[in-house]
Amino acid sequence: MRPRIDYTLYLVTDRSQMNAPTLTKAVESAIKGGCTLVQLREKTASSREFYDQAQELRVLTRAYNIPLIINDRVDIALAVDAEGVHIGQHDLPAHVIRTLIGPTKIMGVSAHTLAEAQAAAQAQADYLGIGAMFATPTKPDAATIAMTEYQRIRRHIRLPLVLIGGLTLQTIPQLSGCGADGMAVVSAILAQPDIERAASDIKETILRGKAAERQ
Amino acid sequence: MRPRIDYTLYLVTDRSQMNAPTLTKAVESAIKGGCTLVQLREKTASSREFYDQAQELRVLTRAYNIPLIINDRVDIALAVDAEGVHIGQHDLPAHVIRTLIGPTKIMGVSAHTLAEAQAAAQAQADYLGIGAMFATPTKPDAATIAMTEYQRIRRHIRLPLVLIGGLTLQTIPQLSGCGADGMAVVSAILAQPDIERAASDIKETILRGKAAERQ
Repeated sequence: MRPRIDYTLYLVTDRSQMNAPTLTKAVESAIKGGCTLVQLREKTASSREFYDQAQELRVLTRAYNIPLIINDRVDIALAVDAEGVHIGQHDLPAHVIRTLIGPTKIMGVSAHTLAEAQAAAQAQADYLGIGAMFATPTKPDAATIAMTEYQRIRRHIRLPLVLIGGLTLQTIPQLSGCGADGMAVVSAILAQPDIERAASDIKETILRGKAAERQ
Repeated sequence: MRPRIDYTLYLVTDRSQMNAPTLTKAVESAIKGGCTLVQLREKTASSREFYDQAQELRVLTRAYNIPLIINDRVDIALAVDAEGVHIGQHDLPAHVIRTLIGPTKIMGVSAHTLAEAQAAAQAQADYLGIGAMFATPTKPDAATIAMTEYQRIRRHIRLPLVLIGGLTLQTIPQLSGCGADGMAVVSAILAQPDIERAASDIKETILRGKAAERQ
């Protein structure tokens, strides 16, 4: 059995966006502010640096009982016993990842179209990351997804959907009522002067939207 | 039981040094020329490109009955069922790698000092890569190892030792009699106008040195 995950506020790390002395400190502040899930994403680190950072976050997230997801690197996810991995369309194929991680670990897959979402669901993804919802400084060349395409995915896919890309205090209210399970945030938390406060403000905004959705 | 490996002429790939339309073609020529072992090293590819290339080499090396070693990425080594992985000092720690790959896969470790060599041996490395023996265009900033340090490693370590760094038709004869088990070559094979011929000339030079050593 895979663990049940609360996708409400999904922190995705980016060292270059971080307003804190260490990534571990930044993530701890974000967790204190209400992040429910953490994905470690390292795009320029050596394997050893990535592994060392993953070990630090492993200790931290266990202490707060928050699931840890590793971006791309299955070997590092297995090495630190993370709850799962998140892969994009340029990483190993999802069915290969599932074989490597076994049935009990979480697999998240980034999807930008209904076809990609259906392929990921067929390969036993546990959740999908959908985006970019808005233009974003984290991935300046990421194409944004049309709201109609997102809505097609939501209609056809029963898996939890996490939105990503340009999500901020200002943009999240525009997504209210769209039926997503969670919001993934990078710079709107990590690059802020007060990370804990930024996470807490965003969490409140998301929960307000979810409450409105249920009415 | 791990497979017995012939380390005599160890081809290490480098896409930027390659004089062939595809890496797979280049590796096939090198195998025809006499390479006994192939390491796929990709430093800039996406995970998917790395995996796709590894799969192609998996098919090729099986056809020629040549072991395939994957640089750094244990997940890709496991995904394509390579014979093993090779790690450097900036990759995951060797004892972690051994846990991930299990007892039957080969683990090679790069070492530059006796201390690193001893640590790798203790972590159950199967062979060591020692270098850089000479300055090399493949890794322009790699420090060369003093011959006296290599000799200390040879005296203290019983594992197979493979030399690397600047090995060419011209430099290999200088290493004759040093007791190494194999020579790892990149540009002196892959960047040559006739890859098969370059591999075959180097193989002959190595075997001549080994024969002289035994007399």
